[in-house]
Amino acid sequence: MKNRFLSVVLFLGLINLNVNAQQALWGGGQITSPEINTDQTVTFRYFAPDAKEVKISGDWLPSKDWVPGSEIMNKNENGVWNFTTSALPSDLYSYSFIVDGLKTTDPNNVYLIRDVAMVFNVFIVGGGKADLYAVKIVPHGSVTRRWYDSPSIGFNRRITIYTPPGYETSKEKYPVLYLLHGMGGDEEAWIALGRTSQIMDNLIAQGKAKPMLVVMSNGNVSQEAAPGESSLGLYKPTFELPNTMDGKFEESFRDVIQFVESNYRVKAEKSGRAIAGLSMGGFHSLHISRYYTKSFDYVGLFSAAILPDTSVTSKIYENLDATLETQMKNGYKLYWIGMGKTDFLYNDGKAYRARLDKIGMKYTYLESEGGHTWTNWRVYLSDFVPLLFR
Amino acid sequence: MKNRFLSVVLFLGLINLNVNAQQALWGGGQITSPEINTDQTVTFRYFAPDAKEVKISGDWLPSKDWVPGSEIMNKNENGVWNFTTSALPSDLYSYSFIVDGLKTTDPNNVYLIRDVAMVFNVFIVGGGKADLYAVKIVPHGSVTRRWYDSPSIGFNRRITIYTPPGYETSKEKYPVLYLLHGMGGDEEAWIALGRTSQIMDNLIAQGKAKPMLVVMSNGNVSQEAAPGESSLGLYKPTFELPNTMDGKFEESFRDVIQFVESNYRVKAEKSGRAIAGLSMGGFHSLHISRYYTKSFDYVGLFSAAILPDTSVTSKIYENLDATLETQMKNGYKLYWIGMGKTDFLYNDGKAYRARLDKIGMKYTYLESEGGHTWTNWRVYLSDFVPLLFR
Repeated sequence: MKNRFLSVVLFLGLINLNVNAQQALWGGGQITSPEINTDQTVTFRYFAPDAKEVKISGDWLPSKDWVPGSEIMNKNENGVWNFTTSALPSDLYSYSFIVDGLKTTDPNNVYLIRDVAMVFNVFIVGGGKADLYAVKIVPHGSVTRRWYDSPSIGFNRRITIYTPPGYETSKEKYPVLYLLHGMGGDEEAWIALGRTSQIMDNLIAQGKAKPMLVVMSNGNVSQEAAPGESSLGLYKPTFELPNTMDGKFEESFRDVIQFVESNYRVKAEKSGRAIAGLSMGGFHSLHISRYYTKSFDYVGLFSAAILPDTSVTSKIYENLDATLETQMKNGYKLYWIGMGKTDFLYNDGKAYRARLDKIGMKYTYLESEGGHTWTNWRVYLSDFVPLLFR
Repeated sequence: MKNRFLSVVLFLGLINLNVNAQQALWGGGQITSPEINTDQTVTFRYFAPDAKEVKISGDWLPSKDWVPGSEIMNKNENGVWNFTTSALPSDLYSYSFIVDGLKTTDPNNVYLIRDVAMVFNVFIVGGGKADLYAVKIVPHGSVTRRWYDSPSIGFNRRITIYTPPGYETSKEKYPVLYLLHGMGGDEEAWIALGRTSQIMDNLIAQGKAKPMLVVMSNGNVSQEAAPGESSLGLYKPTFELPNTMDGKFEESFRDVIQFVESNYRVKAEKSGRAIAGLSMGGFHSLHISRYYTKSFDYVGLFSAAILPDTSVTSKIYENLDATLETQMKNGYKLYWIGMGKTDFLYNDGKAYRARLDKIGMKYTYLESEGGHTWTNWRVYLSDFVPLLFR
């Protein structure tokens, strides 16, 4: 009989050979990178004995014109380039190696996130706010990619929906947070870069957030779905999408609400709806919450763009002050604004707050360090969600 | 008012600057790679003016000891390395660049798939079988990542579930295909590498497959979830997981069935259940379908490992012939075996078929070209699914 088992043993053996052969070929070896050290420093390693210069570029380094800074790594006698950061505050970070001038991913780190048209390796430094971004041993919600009909747009579209732990077996009706992405993003942005399902699971487990659905729609009305998930195939993504801030998405948003409220056990009422978004998604949230009167008791503007380009004409953007006054008169529980001190939209946000002050519209304001970054948006989500549906 | 809009314009401008600056830094430029040409050749491009040698390594090239072959690319006067393949048969392919001996991903292709501990770029050549692997304008099923309690294992585990178009709004009961991954895989393998949701959507839309649920469990009983999706954090994945082929997964499989049949509107009967898997998952399917008597009318063994190591003792693996005879006596509709001619498990499969022949157990056999590859497993899935629940 023994020889019959040989192929299974061989199977295991060959696969090891495969990994070893590939590692020899590709220089992965037994290297660990990144290594999160106990003192919150992080060590990166990259095997490249013949490279002239290897740099690490990451979003914890000061950036210039949106390009993250970089540091030169040091080669040891085994041809492995090393770099250890100073102690990093708890966060989810992204990085790349630059090998003789060329960006490359870290072959020892399989965790990658796409941000529009670029892919970065990621890691998490715990011991602080990023503990909310990690998967913990707590009850987990479900994450579903689903398609819905959007009659206002004229085709089916993809949506990402988080349902909280217990949703499937409960008889309760749940409130809903509609969570919108920024320019270049899509229905994958909040779940991947935003760590929404981890943040929700952890906040709910800690009793800090009410169980709720989080609906992550796609704000690019020209798209069926995220790059790679539509009939366009595996094309190269771009920021330059048509009809993103011209009122069409806001008009079509009725389809999203209609779909969610017809297909999920949710509280289909103003007190059970929140809407929030980052950057362009903050812009969408601002205008959707104004335009659909009596629809949302909770609004979150994260580093929001505020006003459309002057060339845009849409009924959605008319009568800003009057509709804000109506929104105020109809009542709401929370109008939350978050902005980073160095955000390029800072002055725009400041002017908008002055406008709200002028009409006497109350809001909660968080001014954070930093700028227009996912670092801030994860924090804003973590701060905003506990305030909802109280 | 105009100056208030400036920040939005700036917003757009800065983002373009960002992309351009990053492209300048990283050499992405306006390069298209890969480009699928109309004659089914594929052109790759990589900007690296100072590199001494750039090769492309891809799974359409002959492999040796599991390492895919490579071809040297040619540098043009702009520092862009080029390579055009011969016409490729329709398929989903994976590739990497090797730049002066170092594996790197293609910075112009954001589509990446992890296979155990390595990450590859992917592309699809249509015009044939891979048309099933592409997202088409057809009704789409939903894909949910969910957690279930596994009392046999002692903790909650993650599972991927495809529900067919219309499932949520129908009152019908659906049949279920349980689809199991190979060694080193997890609950992400079939949905990512296997293109299961695309294959199912397309086969159902073409009327070639019955609408069914596809349940993709995690066959590594030591894991809560796929790498990066569990409380272990963002660790380096490995093939070497404990308790993968010692009976524990098969024993715990009752929890998966119990979960699905308690939580989904499915046909909880032998005629409504199919089980199939690749390699180790074929091994699991073979033994689960024997061990849980009267449970499955459809069984698929894709490049299956057959017998456990002789050092393994588990009641699951006892009395192979007798339990197969019982399975035969209880009746089944389809016992399907697929194997590649150059698969290292070929002889093992041949011996198993001889064993089935000896006891008179009927099966359907597909012998394909090629070996132990996802290329074959996607084909086997595409061929197997239309035969189910007829």
